[in-house]
Amino acid sequence: MCDRKYAILGTGALGGFYGAKLQKAGLDVHFLLRSDYEHVSQYGLLIESKEGDFTLSQVNAYQYVEKMPQCDVVVVALKTTQNYLLPELLPPIVKDGGVVLVLQNGLGIEEEIAQIVGNVSIISGLCFLCSNKVGQGHIRHLDYGLITLGEYVPGYHSVGITDRMQQIADDFSSAGIAIELAEDLLLARWKKLVWNIPYNGLSVILNATTDELMADVYTCRLVEQLMFEVAAGANSYGRNIPDSFIQKMLDYTLKMKPYRTSMKIDYDACRPLEVEAIFGNPLRKARAAGINLLQISCIYDQLKFLDTKNQRQY
Amino acid sequence: MCDRKYAILGTGALGGFYGAKLQKAGLDVHFLLRSDYEHVSQYGLLIESKEGDFTLSQVNAYQYVEKMPQCDVVVVALKTTQNYLLPELLPPIVKDGGVVLVLQNGLGIEEEIAQIVGNVSIISGLCFLCSNKVGQGHIRHLDYGLITLGEYVPGYHSVGITDRMQQIADDFSSAGIAIELAEDLLLARWKKLVWNIPYNGLSVILNATTDELMADVYTCRLVEQLMFEVAAGANSYGRNIPDSFIQKMLDYTLKMKPYRTSMKIDYDACRPLEVEAIFGNPLRKARAAGINLLQISCIYDQLKFLDTKNQRQY
Repeated sequence: MCDRKYAILGTGALGGFYGAKLQKAGLDVHFLLRSDYEHVSQYGLLIESKEGDFTLSQVNAYQYVEKMPQCDVVVVALKTTQNYLLPELLPPIVKDGGVVLVLQNGLGIEEEIAQIVGNVSIISGLCFLCSNKVGQGHIRHLDYGLITLGEYVPGYHSVGITDRMQQIADDFSSAGIAIELAEDLLLARWKKLVWNIPYNGLSVILNATTDELMADVYTCRLVEQLMFEVAAGANSYGRNIPDSFIQKMLDYTLKMKPYRTSMKIDYDACRPLEVEAIFGNPLRKARAAGINLLQISCIYDQLKFLDTKNQRQY
Repeated sequence: MCDRKYAILGTGALGGFYGAKLQKAGLDVHFLLRSDYEHVSQYGLLIESKEGDFTLSQVNAYQYVEKMPQCDVVVVALKTTQNYLLPELLPPIVKDGGVVLVLQNGLGIEEEIAQIVGNVSIISGLCFLCSNKVGQGHIRHLDYGLITLGEYVPGYHSVGITDRMQQIADDFSSAGIAIELAEDLLLARWKKLVWNIPYNGLSVILNATTDELMADVYTCRLVEQLMFEVAAGANSYGRNIPDSFIQKMLDYTLKMKPYRTSMKIDYDACRPLEVEAIFGNPLRKARAAGINLLQISCIYDQLKFLDTKNQRQY
C-alpha cells in the first residue's frame, strides 16, 4: 500500500462508506464527525453492503479539524449546503501540494474551493452510489458505487488524466471501489446533471419516485426536455452531450427499480436541499454564456419556494 | 322586464349564484341539476351573500335537458372538464337564433361549441367571482361578481359591442350583477389567463395560497415570468397585453386576502382539473402560431401528472 493519508470531511452515507472501504484496504484514514462523534469514537463504523458487511471497531474519529493531522488527500463528502464551512475546515488539514477530492454533485464547486486553499490540486469525483445512514456510525450500502474522477484547473479546461488522478484511482481501486477517469471534468459534471436535474427536481416538486415520473407521458416528456436543456447548457461551454446519451439515461431510468432520489430523501427529512449547486449554478453559468434555460429556471424557482417552506416547518 | 328565457347548465357555485340573481330580478330561469336535483326541486335555492342573503323557495329544476323548454339564452356554467357533455345538452334547449353564454375560463371553448350548435350566437362571460357551494342548493357568495362579456365569431375577430351582448348585459345589470363589455373576446380571454395560469397552476403544484406565492422572491418572479409568457401567447395572435396590465395583476394579488385558487379547491376535492382549457389550449394555440411557451409547458406537464394521480387516488 501507499502511505497517502486521507481525511474524510462528512462521515455520512457517502463519506462514511468510501472512507471505511479505504481504511479496510489498509489506508490511513481520518474521519471528521459531528453528531456521531461520540458513538463512532467508541464503537467504530458498521457497514452493511451487498458486497459484504464489515465493521471497523477502531477508527480515527475527530470532532474538530484542529485535532486532525495534515493529510495528502482531503475528501469533501459534505452536502454542498454545508460548503460554507469549508473555509474553516479545509486549510488546517490539507498538506501543501496535497489534493482536495470533492465528492459532490453540481457545478462551480471547484472554483469556490480554489478560493479557499492555495497550493493544492482539486480533483472531483462524481459518485454513482445508493447508500443511506441508518443509525449512528451505521451505513447501509444498497447498490452501485462507481466514482468518475476528473481534475480541475481554472477555466475548466480539459486536462486529460493526470498522475494525481491515477494515484487516487489506484488507492480507491485497491479498496474495491470502481473508478472511471474523465479527461474533461466540466463535461463529466454536466453529464451528471442530465440525470440529477430532472429527477431530483421533479421528485421533490411532484412527490414522485423515478418510476412514476417515467410512467406518465407528460412528466416523461418534461424529463426529456429538461435533459435537453442541460445539454444546451453544456453546449454553451463547448461541451457536447449527444442525444444518444440522453436516450441512454432515459432507458436506464426506465429499467431502474422505483427510486426515491437523494434530494427527495433530504426533502422528506426536512434537510436543506442542494438547489444552488445542482440548479442555481448551472443556470447562472448558462446565463453567463448567453443561454436562458427556461424550464430548469421554472424548476429552480419552485424548489427554492419548497425548500424555504420546508426549512421553516422544521 | 324582458321576456328572455334563461337556462342554466350547471347549478353550482357560479351558475347557481348568477341564475338565482336573475330569477330574483324577475327573469324566467330554468336550472339543470344533477346531484342536487331532488333537494332543489323540493326546497329551492339558498344564497348567502355579502350583498344580502336570499332564498328562492321555488325554482324550475330539471334533471334532464329533455324536460327543459327551449331558451333564448343557455348559460354554460359547467366546469370545462364536463364539456364533453355539451353535444348532448345544448342542442335540445337552445332556441334557433338564440345565445349560448359561456361562463368558463380558458381558450378555444367557443370553437368547440360552434361545432355543436348551428344558428346561434356564442357570447362568453369571464367571471370574476368568489363563491362556493357549501351544501345542496346552498351557495355562499364571498366576494366580487363582475362578468366581462365578449362575442365570438369564427377566427376570433374583434366584433365590438353587439346588440345581443347589450341585451344580456341589461338583464344581468337588472339583477345587480356588474357587467363589463369587451370589444375583443380573444384579448379578454388572454388577459384572464394572465392571472389564471400562474396562480392556478402554482397553487396546485406547490400547495400554496396566493399570498405565499407572492411572499417568496422566487415564486413571485416565476409568476411574473409566466404572465409574460401569456402576453407572448396573446401577442402571437396580434393581441397586445401591456406590461402595465401585468404589473396591475401583481399589485392587485399582493393586496388580496390569502386566496385558495379555484383549481386548488378542485384539486383538494379530488375533482378533475381544468388543465386543458386553461393551459393545454393556450399552449397549442401559441404553438400553432409558432411560439413555444416553455415555462407554461413545464407547468402544464406537472399539472397533468398531478391531475392523473389525484383522480386515480379518488
